Amino acid sequence: MIPERLHALRAKMKEYHVDACLVPTSDFHESEYVGPYFKCRAYITGFTGSAGTAVITGEDALLWTDGRYFVQAAKQLRDTGVTLMKMGEEGVPTVEEYLQSHIKEGMTLAFDGRVVNDSLGETLAKKLPGVAFSYDKDLVGEIWNDRPALSCEPVWILDEKYAGESASSKLQKIRGKMEACGASVHVLTALDDIVWMLNIRGNDIPCNPVVLSYLILTQKECHLFIQEAALNDEVRSYLDGLGVAIHPYDSVYTYAKELHGETILLEKSHVNYTLCKSLEEQNTLIDGMNPASPLKAVKNPVEMENIRKAHIKDGVAVTKFIYWLKTNIGKIPMDELSVSDKLYSLRQEQEGFLGLSFDTISAYGPNAAMCHYQPTPEDHAQLKPEGLYLVDSGGQYYEGTTDITRTVALGPLTQEEKEHFTVTSMGTLRLGNAKFLHGCIGINLDYLARGAFWERGLDFNHGTGHGVGYLLNVHERPNGIRWRIVPERMDNAVLEEGMLTSDEPGIYIEGSHGIRTENLMLCRKAEKNQYGQFMRFEFVTFVPIDLDAIDTSYMTEKDVELLNAYHKEVYEKISPYLNEEERDWLKEYTRAVEK
Amino acid sequence: MIPERLHALRAKMKEYHVDACLVPTSDFHESEYVGPYFKCRAYITGFTGSAGTAVITGEDALLWTDGRYFVQAAKQLRDTGVTLMKMGEEGVPTVEEYLQSHIKEGMTLAFDGRVVNDSLGETLAKKLPGVAFSYDKDLVGEIWNDRPALSCEPVWILDEKYAGESASSKLQKIRGKMEACGASVHVLTALDDIVWMLNIRGNDIPCNPVVLSYLILTQKECHLFIQEAALNDEVRSYLDGLGVAIHPYDSVYTYAKELHGETILLEKSHVNYTLCKSLEEQNTLIDGMNPASPLKAVKNPVEMENIRKAHIKDGVAVTKFIYWLKTNIGKIPMDELSVSDKLYSLRQEQEGFLGLSFDTISAYGPNAAMCHYQPTPEDHAQLKPEGLYLVDSGGQYYEGTTDITRTVALGPLTQEEKEHFTVTSMGTLRLGNAKFLHGCIGINLDYLARGAFWERGLDFNHGTGHGVGYLLNVHERPNGIRWRIVPERMDNAVLEEGMLTSDEPGIYIEGSHGIRTENLMLCRKAEKNQYGQFMRFEFVTFVPIDLDAIDTSYMTEKDVELLNAYHKEVYEKISPYLNEEERDWLKEYTRAVEK
Repeated sequence: MIPERLHALRAKMKEYHVDACLVPTSDFHESEYVGPYFKCRAYITGFTGSAGTAVITGEDALLWTDGRYFVQAAKQLRDTGVTLMKMGEEGVPTVEEYLQSHIKEGMTLAFDGRVVNDSLGETLAKKLPGVAFSYDKDLVGEIWNDRPALSCEPVWILDEKYAGESASSKLQKIRGKMEACGASVHVLTALDDIVWMLNIRGNDIPCNPVVLSYLILTQKECHLFIQEAALNDEVRSYLDGLGVAIHPYDSVYTYAKELHGETILLEKSHVNYTLCKSLEEQNTLIDGMNPASPLKAVKNPVEMENIRKAHIKDGVAVTKFIYWLKTNIGKIPMDELSVSDKLYSLRQEQEGFLGLSFDTISAYGPNAAMCHYQPTPEDHAQLKPEGLYLVDSGGQYYEGTTDITRTVALGPLTQEEKEHFTVTSMGTLRLGNAKFLHGCIGINLDYLARGAFWERGLDFNHGTGHGVGYLLNVHERPNGIRWRIVPERMDNAVLEEGMLTSDEPGIYIEGSHGIRTENLMLCRKAEKNQYGQFMRFEFVTFVPIDLDAIDTSYMTEKDVELLNAYHKEVYEKISPYLNEEERDWLKEYTRAVEK
Repeated sequence: MIPERLHALRAKMKEYHVDACLVPTSDFHESEYVGPYFKCRAYITGFTGSAGTAVITGEDALLWTDGRYFVQAAKQLRDTGVTLMKMGEEGVPTVEEYLQSHIKEGMTLAFDGRVVNDSLGETLAKKLPGVAFSYDKDLVGEIWNDRPALSCEPVWILDEKYAGESASSKLQKIRGKMEACGASVHVLTALDDIVWMLNIRGNDIPCNPVVLSYLILTQKECHLFIQEAALNDEVRSYLDGLGVAIHPYDSVYTYAKELHGETILLEKSHVNYTLCKSLEEQNTLIDGMNPASPLKAVKNPVEMENIRKAHIKDGVAVTKFIYWLKTNIGKIPMDELSVSDKLYSLRQEQEGFLGLSFDTISAYGPNAAMCHYQPTPEDHAQLKPEGLYLVDSGGQYYEGTTDITRTVALGPLTQEEKEHFTVTSMGTLRLGNAKFLHGCIGINLDYLARGAFWERGLDFNHGTGHGVGYLLNVHERPNGIRWRIVPERMDNAVLEEGMLTSDEPGIYIEGSHGIRTENLMLCRKAEKNQYGQFMRFEFVTFVPIDLDAIDTSYMTEKDVELLNAYHKEVYEKISPYLNEEERDWLKEYTRAVEK
């Protein structure tokens, strides 16, 4: 199937005199996850992970992806004719390095300018002097016959009792930021920033309650480019009340061409190349982070209180799930898909549950060594009463977005599995119990999660934590926890009260097992004294960490203390929502342990 | 005295129509410590600390310094008419902010362009548009009648058995770096980089065995601008053999003016404004870190082995000192100066000792709360058999530079002192025992030293670690350990095998006590596996950490283990060089303790 598609694409490339075709993973808005309409990279390579870039030339078909996906990609690319390029590994060129050595002066590189951000486009232009860019065609789209339609789900209004702040207040703040940097116009295409600002939600990207749209803001005007079929009268009238003018979704490109003499604030790494190209000639561009991003990251007190509620609900669902799993394993048939469905049904029982916040990672045994493995009807494992099962999942609730990973012992474990599980949970607990001075960024704290691994010569090939939205995208900047600065991720902001960040160390042993323990945590203020403002985290995720997989001999006394304190809180917060059997079980599984 | 000097300076300023005078702490080479000739800032303000900047206008006389010196500066500035500006404190403008608000268009700012680096000069020019710079006069120099002469100490050659690499090999590496960045000329004015490159040493800055000089390098030529009286025949002939042409020290400014059409690599933040101004008009400047700096920081195997030896010698001296101190306190009179002299005499007994690597900080009781306190004949404390005494000192040896701090219980301590001492030593030991992946920089690891303080709502107002030279400056970049990135310090390099870094957490309670425990540590490779190259530290400092001040109830079991392991090594390495009484004492003071 993939070879045929590559063949068709290469024919197209010949027709258009194109030497190489770049196919990134993006929609017109630089979204991390994309709707089915936009899955060109998956269509042309067969690799379905959330991150990757394909390059196709007459001779080569290459796919770059990161450490989370090495195992999955290797599996999915087998016999496709597509070569896996492991990002960050020694000796593996980057996409740009590859293009530099293969695409020479006078040749043509094609990409859909709407799915490549302007920063990347500019970098490519600099690194490939004399190479022509063909960016007005969607080559993969031209060969994709049964392509799904563009999503157009209904838009709805997020009540202020959930949002905690009115859209007009948010617009005022953004306009203040525009003024401060001397911008007359702000062009915004990041979907989560747009819907956050307007207090609307939709469903145009699976698991991300966003609305396909562009926004152009001035001090007096607010132009929203959106599929009008997605708007009912209530939403239209609400937007009208905010002073928002409605335009057809696609008309943003012609509207942009008419702007001139403006000073436009936009974030080049988050606005597509085609749109930037149509703005930059007649206007002055200020390239800066969308002002909405750092504002959105700092949850307000109403959001914080709601987030706690959402996580209790979610914690009840996941706790019931683990109880069900551990008491029924070996007694009834279970596979990765069926238990994932069971978890979904338990979340559905929770009031205000709107859907998943990302596709559930339900992985048994060696499958869990693939960080972002997802079972499919064709390819999934049966669960047996032995070894470890990992589930990374989350829900969208009116009260916020959840994201939790638990790894569960389904039966006897090896000593190595116990050590790895214990070390992982130590990392989660140590980081979540950090106290630090205001001014710290993620890399100051990452060692807390990773130190126990590094001491043993172990590591995990992913970040330790990411920001999480409020009833929005499960991955949100500018807060994050990692040990290396990755400038383009822009996730190294100073940790501020109200930021919601994940805490998810793990360990992945190919062919054997995978473990991750993930809680979300709110950043909070601790005491302020002559040394400054101290900060701490507050776990909002409450689900037991499987004591069957803990061996306290690997822990310090302090680690044991943190585990027991966490479990005490889990029992207090979750037990009121359980039936008697579940409650007895939880009592046992949150008991204080000793070293 | 200071008011009279300020009066004289203001008269000069009037004479030259100058509205403000900037007096930084520097020599012509941006050295951290400066010889007596260059102490203009101390002369005009009375503040003798190693870091600070003065600004004098018709109305104001202001001194900026950092947290290490707040207490000392406040004391020394009393009744001088000079106001202390505490850098980094809320509401305190920076030097630049102050100048921006007080020195308006059309006014004139004076500074000696030879003691202001070009980066600062350029920043000031940008931030003070329309302000005239008078940079060709040395205003403080003009009123300083009894100014000391410029140092001109003999230059000597550092044998390759100490340096581990020939000067010609080093010159070849630097020329390779020049070629790589397309520079035809490299202008170098940093004294430690110059003497490192040429394998020479001198004594032109107290405690820093450097030689006042400038160096201009091309692929074929090497021009050294140096006071010829400092050179004997042997050194002349050695330099000649390296292809080094000798020029008078001051002639660098006229020589520089004659260069044209060259591409010159220089580091603007390390080359003075006057020199840069005379180069920039007719040449292309490449602003980059001196290639010598990162090369110098990575000690070669010969240097590493020598460093271990130097630290044993130094450790013997400091251990004997602590034994003497603890056994004689209360029996013979002791004051901060006399015990400092005693320590000096014990270092002098060590073979190959060349002098101190910085002025000894010898501080008893509340004086130790002033991080960089130095006793003077006029102002110093008597030591009593109670409380804590802090000594931060180091030596220059043929085998390297040492820097060690120990805090010693002279008698009964308060519980708070014990807790603070224990927490400090935990920080030192935790950091020194870190294991981490190659790629880590200081801020990844700082939490190890600071975490136990932060947990208690405590902090220390200085970096945790700095690079240390080899028989060179005690403060060296580009390695360092701190929690906040301070770009201008350029001390956040990836930690490489061979880098020598200090590990010196502390705690300072104004009016009560000050504690610091400082070891130097070499960065070493640990195992390499599928996760990457692991790194660790190797302590090279071996002197007991005073068990009389340790309360293990504050420690984790792991902390106790680290302390006992360190003390075991101290005994093994130091005891062979002690007499029987000292050895018995050391046995007792390095005994394994229990929680």
